[in-house]
Amino acid sequence: MQRFQVTAQAGNYPVMIGRGAWRELRPLPQSSYSSVFVLTEKGIWQHWGKRFMREAALRKACPIFVPPGEKSKSLAEVERVASELARAGGDRRSLLILFGGGVIGDLGGLVASTYMRGIDCIQVPTTLVGQVDSSIGGKNAVNLPAGKNLVGTFYPPRMVLADPAVLSTLSPRIFRSGLYEVIKHAILAGPALFDLLDRHLDSLRPDNLKALEAILGPVVRVKIDVVNRDERESGLRQVLNLGHTFGHALEAATGYGRFLHGECVGWGLLAITILAEQLGYLNAAASTPKKGVPDSRRIRDLVWRVGPLPSIRNIPARAIVKLLLHDKKAVAGKIHWVIPERLGKMRIVTGIPLAAAERAWRDLRGMSNPR
Amino acid sequence: MQRFQVTAQAGNYPVMIGRGAWRELRPLPQSSYSSVFVLTEKGIWQHWGKRFMREAALRKACPIFVPPGEKSKSLAEVERVASELARAGGDRRSLLILFGGGVIGDLGGLVASTYMRGIDCIQVPTTLVGQVDSSIGGKNAVNLPAGKNLVGTFYPPRMVLADPAVLSTLSPRIFRSGLYEVIKHAILAGPALFDLLDRHLDSLRPDNLKALEAILGPVVRVKIDVVNRDERESGLRQVLNLGHTFGHALEAATGYGRFLHGECVGWGLLAITILAEQLGYLNAAASTPKKGVPDSRRIRDLVWRVGPLPSIRNIPARAIVKLLLHDKKAVAGKIHWVIPERLGKMRIVTGIPLAAAERAWRDLRGMSNPR
Repeated sequence: MQRFQVTAQAGNYPVMIGRGAWRELRPLPQSSYSSVFVLTEKGIWQHWGKRFMREAALRKACPIFVPPGEKSKSLAEVERVASELARAGGDRRSLLILFGGGVIGDLGGLVASTYMRGIDCIQVPTTLVGQVDSSIGGKNAVNLPAGKNLVGTFYPPRMVLADPAVLSTLSPRIFRSGLYEVIKHAILAGPALFDLLDRHLDSLRPDNLKALEAILGPVVRVKIDVVNRDERESGLRQVLNLGHTFGHALEAATGYGRFLHGECVGWGLLAITILAEQLGYLNAAASTPKKGVPDSRRIRDLVWRVGPLPSIRNIPARAIVKLLLHDKKAVAGKIHWVIPERLGKMRIVTGIPLAAAERAWRDLRGMSNPR
Repeated sequence: MQRFQVTAQAGNYPVMIGRGAWRELRPLPQSSYSSVFVLTEKGIWQHWGKRFMREAALRKACPIFVPPGEKSKSLAEVERVASELARAGGDRRSLLILFGGGVIGDLGGLVASTYMRGIDCIQVPTTLVGQVDSSIGGKNAVNLPAGKNLVGTFYPPRMVLADPAVLSTLSPRIFRSGLYEVIKHAILAGPALFDLLDRHLDSLRPDNLKALEAILGPVVRVKIDVVNRDERESGLRQVLNLGHTFGHALEAATGYGRFLHGECVGWGLLAITILAEQLGYLNAAASTPKKGVPDSRRIRDLVWRVGPLPSIRNIPARAIVKLLLHDKKAVAGKIHWVIPERLGKMRIVTGIPLAAAERAWRDLRGMSNPR
C-alpha cells in the first residue's frame, strides 16, 4: 500500500492506495461523529458493503442510495440526498462516506460541502477513474442543463481510501474507460511512466491486483503532485484538463450518458494529439522518439490499444466545435487548450482557430482504429 | 460613513456602512471581471437600480431577477439562477452583485460560491436585516422541505456596501422586522448599546437617515466582532443565534412566509427571555437594573415597543416544541440554547427540559402586548 499527502487550504489529507486501504479507516475516532452515512449505489453496496464495514470496522452506518449514471449529478439529487440526511437525523457532526465512482464522489462531495454548511466526508473510490483521478483534489460538481460540472465547490475530504480489489467487479467497459485517465496521467508525467504503462497495459485487468497495484501508485502521484502545487486551478492544474476540452464537448454532444466520461477522454486525447500534430506543437522532430516512433504516434497507439471506443461516426465536427465554447474553463469566450508538446511537457495555448479544431475532429472521425 | 474589516479564512473584506457606501465600488477594477451580474428583485431594482449603477459607476451589468420571498431560497432557484448565468455567458471571472435583502444574499451567496466552483460576489444589502446582520459573516443557505438553511456554505464576499438611504422605500412592516435583529445585537453587546437603542428606537424610521446612520454603525460592529473571533461557528458565534431557536421553530410552524424572519426573531427574543427568567438565569437580582427595571423587563419592553407582531394565538406550544428539535444547530438531538443572563452576557446551555420551553411559549401566548 502507498500513502500520499495532499495539501489543501482547508486542511491536508492522506490518500491511501493499495490492497487493504479500507482498514485505514479503523484509527478514525468514530465516536467523534454523531452518525455515519454512506452514499453509494445499490449494486456496489450489495457486492462490497459487508466487506467494507468489516474491514473499516464500522459499527453502524446508514446507506443512502443514488441511481447509477451521470443523470444523478444534478441539484435535484443534491436536494434529495440532503433531505434524506435531514430525515435520518444527520447533523453537523455527521460523517458522509462516498463509496462509489466519479458520480458518487462528485455528487457526494457537493452534498458534504453544503449540508449544514459542510460536514466531514471520506472518499472511497470504487472505479478506476475514481481511484486515479476524481477522488483526489477536492473538486466536486453537478451538471446544469446548460453544461457539465457548472455547480460545485472545492472541498477536501478527510481521507481517500482506494483499494483496487474493488475493481474486480467492474464491467470491462467501465474499467477500460478508467484506463484513458491513466494514460492521460502518464502523458503528463513523462517518458518514464509512459514507458511503464506501455509495457504493462495489457496486464491491467480488473482481476489482476498485482499489476494494478504496481501502476496505480505512480499514476496517483502525478495527480497529487499537480494538485499540491495548485489546489484552486489558478494555473498549473489546468494541465489535468488534457483531452478534456474535446472530451467534454463530446459528452455534451452525446447528451451525457451515451458515452462514459473516460471514453470521451479517450477520444479527447486522440483529438488533441492530432490537433497538436497538425499545428506543429507535437512533431516528430521536436519530441523524443523511442525506437524511431514519435510521441504523437505513441500516444495514439496507446489509446487505441485500450480496446474499442464507441463510434463517433455520427458526431459531426461542427457540433463538437459549437460545444467547445461552452466549456467551463473558457474565460471570456477564450478556450485554454492543453497542448502536448512531448511526453511530460504541456503548453497552455489560447487563440487556436476553431477551424483547426474542426479539422482535427474531422480527421479523427475519418481514421479507423488501426487495431 | 463607517468602515470595518471582517477577517475570514478565505480572505478579509471591508464592510462600508453609511450614506454614499455604493460609491465605494468605484475603486473596483471592473476590467478584471469578464462580466458583471446583479442578482436582485424587480421591485428593488426599479426603484434603485439606476442610482446604484450611477453611484457605483458601473458601466454595464446584467440584472437577474428573483421572485421576492422565502420561497426563492431553494436549490431549484439556485439551478435557475446558475443556468441564467451560464446562458448569459457568465464564466469564472464574472462578478455577482447581490442587491437585495436576506433572501437575495442567502440565495446569491450560495450561487456565487458554487457557480463554476466559486466566483466573486459583493453584498449590497437593501433591507435592515440585511444591513445589520445577514450580509456580514459569509454565511449563506437555502431551505429544504425538511428545514430552513440546511444547504449552504461559508463564502466571504469581496465587500459589503450598506447605504441606509435605500431603506426609505421599505414597507413599515419589513423595516420593523429588521429592528428585532437590531435589538438582538444590542442585547448581545451590553448596557451601553442597549441604552442607546432604548433612547433612539422611536426615531428609527425608514426615512430618518441621520438616526439610522447613528445606530447602524455600532450595531454592525457587534456582529463583526463576533464573526471575527469565530468565522466558522465553532463556539462564540453561537451567541448570534439568540432568539433564533424559538424563531426558526415559529418560521417552520407557519410554513415560512406567513411571518417575516425578523418577526419570528422578535417572538423568539420574547420567548427566550421568558424561558431565561423562569429557569432563573435572568432574574432581577443578578442583573443590573436600570432605575429599578430588571433586564428581563427591559428586553421585553423594547421588543414590544417596535410595534405590532403578527399574532401567535393559533401556534400551539406543542407544535413549537416538536420543531425545536429540527434546528440545524442541534447536534445529536441536543439543542444549544443561547440564554441571556444579563445584557451583554449570554450562556450556552444544553439539556433544558422541553417541558420548560413549552411552558415559556404557552405563557408568551397568554401575554397580551402591554402597549
